[in-house]
Amino acid sequence: ELFVLTYGALVAQLCKDYEKDEDVNTYLDRMGYGIGVRLIDDFLARSAVKKCRSYSETADVIAQVAFKMYLGVTPSVSCSSAAGNEFSLILDKNPLVDFVEELPAERASLCYCNLLCGVIRGALEMVHLAAEVTFLQDRLKGDAVTEIGITFLRKAED
Amino acid sequence: ELFVLTYGALVAQLCKDYEKDEDVNTYLDRMGYGIGVRLIDDFLARSAVKKCRSYSETADVIAQVAFKMYLGVTPSVSCSSAAGNEFSLILDKNPLVDFVEELPAERASLCYCNLLCGVIRGALEMVHLAAEVTFLQDRLKGDAVTEIGITFLRKAED
Repeated sequence: ELFVLTYGALVAQLCKDYEKDEDVNTYLDRMGYGIGVRLIDDFLARSAVKKCRSYSETADVIAQVAFKMYLGVTPSVSCSSAAGNEFSLILDKNPLVDFVEELPAERASLCYCNLLCGVIRGALEMVHLAAEVTFLQDRLKGDAVTEIGITFLRKAED
Repeated sequence: ELFVLTYGALVAQLCKDYEKDEDVNTYLDRMGYGIGVRLIDDFLARSAVKKCRSYSETADVIAQVAFKMYLGVTPSVSCSSAAGNEFSLILDKNPLVDFVEELPAERASLCYCNLLCGVIRGALEMVHLAAEVTFLQDRLKGDAVTEIGITFLRKAED
């Protein structure tokens, strides 16, 4: 909870600093990237996971090991492309928004949890997996679930 | 660790926004206050602690229950005034600075963890205990330990 509230204070501060939601989103993503780059060592050391052999295995490790370890929840994973390089993490419950009721009307484009996308992107890059990570659905915006999309940028066979 | 790194990103952002260390310290304290005001309900619900009968008991609960619950460490407590209203929490290890090696030379007056002082102050105020909370020593500044001073502002008998 201390983390969740501190994160809320961070987002509030950025909303004060940047008028446009897009700028806050970019900033959170970039900040998350810097965190992911540093967090990966801690993750590899504590989780003792081995090298993943496929994108599908990588997505499972992110959901079942990393989310569990750092956020205490386990999203479900689905593969959303025939090419096998696009995955969705579906969160029924997002602990980062425990104290957020809804976004203010003037902040409708804010991706409140965008830091997470940056963290995943930064951590993946450190294990040589380039990826795009974005929110596809968000309960804070009235969607039924929260969905994070991960698209691995190289072909699955590489 | 995700919390610790996110907190670091928050402090870095504030250092970018405010040139003077004092302004960053004030901001962190104010931000922490807002968090403490909200965190107290969670704390009372989860800890099931009862009403404290003395300042000394209150200080012990902060150290042994609250710090343990939210930061995973237990500071030692000492009473530092004959009047019985001043206490020190001594932290041998401060998890919030796990990834910080030392403060940059130009940020020598920064109280990196000042958010914690605000959190304690805000939470205490919600249970009708006015207090001043400040860092007295900080390992980040070369002190042997990290020491948070809590001064309850009303007389012990009140």
